[in-house]
Amino acid sequence: MNAPQAQRPAPTPAENSVVPENGWHCGHFFYRFDRDALPDRLSDDLAQRFREAFAPTETAPQRLASYWISGHEVDFGVMVMDPDPAVVDSIHQGLQSGGLGKVIKPAWSFVSISEVSEYVPSVEQYRERLIREGTQPDAPELAAKVAAYERRLPMMNQQRLKPEIPDWPAACFYPMNKSRVPGANWFSEPFSRRNAMMAQHAQSGIAFANRVSQLISVGVGLDDWEWMVTLWARNPQFLKDIVYQMRFDEASAKYAEFGPFYVGYQADADAIMRHCRVAPTTP
Amino acid sequence: MNAPQAQRPAPTPAENSVVPENGWHCGHFFYRFDRDALPDRLSDDLAQRFREAFAPTETAPQRLASYWISGHEVDFGVMVMDPDPAVVDSIHQGLQSGGLGKVIKPAWSFVSISEVSEYVPSVEQYRERLIREGTQPDAPELAAKVAAYERRLPMMNQQRLKPEIPDWPAACFYPMNKSRVPGANWFSEPFSRRNAMMAQHAQSGIAFANRVSQLISVGVGLDDWEWMVTLWARNPQFLKDIVYQMRFDEASAKYAEFGPFYVGYQADADAIMRHCRVAPTTP
Amino acid sequence: MNAPQAQRPAPTPAENSVVPENGWHCGHFFYRFDRDALPDRLSDDLAQRFREAFAPTETAPQRLASYWISGHEVDFGVMVMDPDPAVVDSIHQGLQSGGLGKVIKPAWSFVSISEVSEYVPSVEQYRERLIREGTQPDAPELAAKVAAYERRLPMMNQQRLKPEIPDWPAACFYPMNKSRVPGANWFSEPFSRRNAMMAQHAQSGIAFANRVSQLISVGVGLDDWEWMVTLWARNPQFLKDIVYQMRFDEASAKYAEFGPFYVGYQADADAIMRHCRVAPTTP
Amino acid sequence: MNAPQAQRPAPTPAENSVVPENGWHCGHFFYRFDRDALPDRLSDDLAQRFREAFAPTETAPQRLASYWISGHEVDFGVMVMDPDPAVVDSIHQGLQSGGLGKVIKPAWSFVSISEVSEYVPSVEQYRERLIREGTQPDAPELAAKVAAYERRLPMMNQQRLKPEIPDWPAACFYPMNKSRVPGANWFSEPFSRRNAMMAQHAQSGIAFANRVSQLISVGVGLDDWEWMVTLWARNPQFLKDIVYQMRFDEASAKYAEFGPFYVGYQADADAIMRHCRVAPTTP
Amino acid sequence: MNAPQAQRPAPTPAENSVVPENGWHCGHFFYRFDRDALPDRLSDDLAQRFREAFAPTETAPQRLASYWISGHEVDFGVMVMDPDPAVVDSIHQGLQSGGLGKVIKPAWSFVSISEVSEYVPSVEQYRERLIREGTQPDAPELAAKVAAYERRLPMMNQQRLKPEIPDWPAACFYPMNKSRVPGANWFSEPFSRRNAMMAQHAQSGIAFANRVSQLISVGVGLDDWEWMVTLWARNPQFLKDIVYQMRFDEASAKYAEFGPFYVGYQADADAIMRHCRVAPTTP
Repeated sequence: MNAPQAQRPAPTPAENSVVPENGWHCGHFFYRFDRDALPDRLSDDLAQRFREAFAPTETAPQRLASYWISGHEVDFGVMVMDPDPAVVDSIHQGLQSGGLGKVIKPAWSFVSISEVSEYVPSVEQYRERLIREGTQPDAPELAAKVAAYERRLPMMNQQRLKPEIPDWPAACFYPMNKSRVPGANWFSEPFSRRNAMMAQHAQSGIAFANRVSQLISVGVGLDDWEWMVTLWARNPQFLKDIVYQMRFDEASAKYAEFGPFYVGYQADADAIMRHCRVAPTTP
Repeated sequence: MNAPQAQRPAPTPAENSVVPENGWHCGHFFYRFDRDALPDRLSDDLAQRFREAFAPTETAPQRLASYWISGHEVDFGVMVMDPDPAVVDSIHQGLQSGGLGKVIKPAWSFVSISEVSEYVPSVEQYRERLIREGTQPDAPELAAKVAAYERRLPMMNQQRLKPEIPDWPAACFYPMNKSRVPGANWFSEPFSRRNAMMAQHAQSGIAFANRVSQLISVGVGLDDWEWMVTLWARNPQFLKDIVYQMRFDEASAKYAEFGPFYVGYQADADAIMRHCRVAPTTP
Repeated sequence: MNAPQAQRPAPTPAENSVVPENGWHCGHFFYRFDRDALPDRLSDDLAQRFREAFAPTETAPQRLASYWISGHEVDFGVMVMDPDPAVVDSIHQGLQSGGLGKVIKPAWSFVSISEVSEYVPSVEQYRERLIREGTQPDAPELAAKVAAYERRLPMMNQQRLKPEIPDWPAACFYPMNKSRVPGANWFSEPFSRRNAMMAQHAQSGIAFANRVSQLISVGVGLDDWEWMVTLWARNPQFLKDIVYQMRFDEASAKYAEFGPFYVGYQADADAIMRHCRVAPTTP
Repeated sequence: MNAPQAQRPAPTPAENSVVPENGWHCGHFFYRFDRDALPDRLSDDLAQRFREAFAPTETAPQRLASYWISGHEVDFGVMVMDPDPAVVDSIHQGLQSGGLGKVIKPAWSFVSISEVSEYVPSVEQYRERLIREGTQPDAPELAAKVAAYERRLPMMNQQRLKPEIPDWPAACFYPMNKSRVPGANWFSEPFSRRNAMMAQHAQSGIAFANRVSQLISVGVGLDDWEWMVTLWARNPQFLKDIVYQMRFDEASAKYAEFGPFYVGYQADADAIMRHCRVAPTTP
Repeated sequence: MNAPQAQRPAPTPAENSVVPENGWHCGHFFYRFDRDALPDRLSDDLAQRFREAFAPTETAPQRLASYWISGHEVDFGVMVMDPDPAVVDSIHQGLQSGGLGKVIKPAWSFVSISEVSEYVPSVEQYRERLIREGTQPDAPELAAKVAAYERRLPMMNQQRLKPEIPDWPAACFYPMNKSRVPGANWFSEPFSRRNAMMAQHAQSGIAFANRVSQLISVGVGLDDWEWMVTLWARNPQFLKDIVYQMRFDEASAKYAEFGPFYVGYQADADAIMRHCRVAPTTP
């Protein structure tokens, strides 16, 4: 009755594989340097292994981005995407093995899979929405808009499944649930209501186009929260602004439950070591 | 008044024993390698003990399956079933003794007992349900369906009590409660309501037949959550899909409270050591 | 207005003492072996101190029972009762001193006092309840039942205050509160309602007579939960069954909040060391 | 509108000082002995420093009382009061410096300030209450009662601000909040309602006069809970009894949220060392 | 519909930068001395590095204030503000590197950005409010008040964005959220309601002018709470008084959720070392 959508897609054929049919596995890993084991600086040798852990030659993942992270809980974070979950996790294992695990402590992580959500309208659904919102069914602009959407949709879905990570300085990461408490139960709402709320929520986000870019990946059945949100921004102020603005959307105001927030700044292995003052003195 | 079922089964005769009358004890154990004590690799000796801990000769449990686990909290997990709780726990003790406990830290566990739940219809209840759903009491198909169910039921119950673990690559593990908050109190609902919701929930699961297999074991009175869910899947995507789909069922949407989720990939002792990069260099 | 009972008992005369007028102090202590400090086995010397900690000669408590505990958080538990709180706590201190504290880490504990609850009917209240439930005031069976209750009551209260611990293989331990949330506030209910719910709850328990035995001790004002429940069982299955059955009682379904559950199996010091594989090789 | 009282007192003149105008700073500090660093006993030297930490000569606080504490989380606790917050905290710093911090680990603490609450009636308010409760305005007993209250009030307020700690064997300590959830929001109630509930609550407590004595100090704006409750008792049973009785008062049943409870027994430094079996063998 | 304000400000132009357009990055960092690594006193060398960490020469932040903190969780705290988030975090990294991280453990932190909230009235909004509250539109006092506000506003906003930290002895720090539970959902209220509640809340605070000064910085999208509150006071009693008084305001009573509270006392590096008794004996 409250099925995600009217027609549930039949599960895909039953072949044993760890590779999802559409999306990629996604790992968000956060660490701090252990100042007991590492009171001062990394040795040249460990620093080199640290650099190599971000750029593995054998099992390089499809995507990898790294950040130094504000605050006391986490010193740096790595976001990884790949069709193979073992390749994603190998980045974490690489940062924990070969002596690195003694000086680098994991602080938080989240595993998820990218997907095109059920709330992304198909071309036909997009057309119907435009008409519902007042465009005349025979208006030339309708056809034009629909055609444009039809051209854009594959790219947008590609970005949802296998995103290009923007070269922007700031990012924030947080997991979330939709609440199921009496009086605010997202999963008891009919698809039409949820769809309308998500469309309005998407509109809020569009106001930040070219300032903030996002990836929503799914943790349901995989980790402790239902979704993982990754926001990339041209300025950390936009992270504050967009999350604040969107919190007033009904989908968030009434139904969203948030986990920990981590804000980070683009940095490769050497920049991380420098920011954290653990870079060897002989670089 | 809200008794689990109209006629409560009388407890079985009072003999002192640690072996349940019907089900098996079940242990889910999750560990991480301690990278302080084990900055690099296991010695040949410890690696051998690690292998032996998964295949004890003296007290081999009836079932044992192992997985490497995604994310930072846990490196690997073991699921164990046996009539004797000491045999189940001996797998955990084996992974903590003989020097292994210094390099392997327990991260989470759950103890439970397998059972045939009160919501599994008896042959007669199954017949009544078919009639209630519209089948004519004298229709030949009714007799055929009931006869088929009667043949299937012992096997299905055997799978509920002493499951064969499928040879599938992915699995996920999580505990759950039924909520008792004002406005969503599972245990205040009459049996008929609970039974109907569980039947609908089971229907949702059947859509994933041959893609996902499950075991529900009971933690009530034994551990901090009421139930433990084990899902095995041909593809990790199905874990995401089934848990998402079923979350819309009233039994979940309104009443389920979830604990931590762990997703894992089938791996024996050597595969775990290799994935975690702690395998000795001389294999 | 919502006083525990109509006539609050006046506190007993004001003399300084740590010994309760009626009940005994009760301590539940749970520990795990520290596999860093104890990677392999206990020395003969420490094993001997471990045995002595369970059987102190100077300050032996009135009751002491020990169990190995399932799962990763706790290896073993000890339950202690005595009129003197220092004697109860001395068992804990004994397991932490003389070198034992380095290899045995406390994981959880609860301090409480045994009592006869306000819901245990007096002989007169018992008589009134029988009449309320339909027995004729002049029926001979009424007098017989009341006389039997009058004979039984002192023994039952003795068991509530200074219980004999049954020689049964399994036990479970958990603390609980009565909820005070809007819509389910136990402490806002009148005594008559609470009394009726507790009487029904007691009836549920009676179905498990000779299979499960219980002790309810009070933590209000002493520890973080209001009550501590100790269940002893002839079979661990009965622990699962009784807690599940009783969860449907209104007193539990609507009002109970539960803390951690620990399930254990009867074991003396040597059995604990053997189960946990820390017994010295020279026994 | 829901101001604490009709006429808010104007804040006192603005002079820079760390000394409150009326009350004293209050610190509750709880510790356990670290059995890794201290597997056996304190050295004579550390034992002497331990004693001195309870009786500092330079910065002796106005009040200091110490207790051994039941259970596994805490071994002992110290309660300190002084006009100067640095003097209060110096007791904690004394127990952590000079080598003591290696063997004594802090487990919990609370900082607060003593005050005369807005619910303590002034002489005039007391007179009005008596009349409201039925005493005739011109009755001689009214004048007598009011005069007695007027004599008692300064002493009672002195005890609220700068209490004498009774020489009784048992004590319990816990922090609390008043709830602000929908349906039970203490801070949305008018002063008259809150005042009536607090008066009834005070009546409950009076039944335990000369058995239990209390101090309520304020943590609002200073620590994680709004109030800290200290109860001293002639018998630990009274702690259980009073907290249980008062939980039925509306002010508690509906509005109170409780933090951790610690129960302790009067003990000086040497008694603590003896109870915890860390006293040096050469006393 | 529930947008923060009727006309949402368009995000500022899209240039890559880590510097916010208006506010400053703000870091609150709290630490304790590790008494295992530092059982006694800091070496002269570490003490000097500790002093330098509070006064870095290369990357001195625009604002830095330090405090010793009451209670067992935290020994001292530092509050830092700067346009560059790396400069803010460098204070934390400075306290963790060069050997200091071994003896100083981070306990809590919060990252935020200062801003002028949407509830600060513009000059025109201020004028309208005065009229709404009864001032005649053509009264000379209206023009005078508006003119005064127009003169004050830039200074007040400067203090909100780039505050001067007052030279007062006491301070308290805590994060907060606005609740979104059914029945008390701040983000579902219209702007006019929220604005009226915030105006009333501001009035409460004005009663403490020249006794307490505040900074509200925003953590939305940056850290685990939505706002960070910093209160500076001439007397710690005012911290207790103002937080208690304001808790009765509807904005707090009904909607505020509070995180941990830390109370501190102004202290430079040397005063912190002295208070915590870790100053080297040769100063």
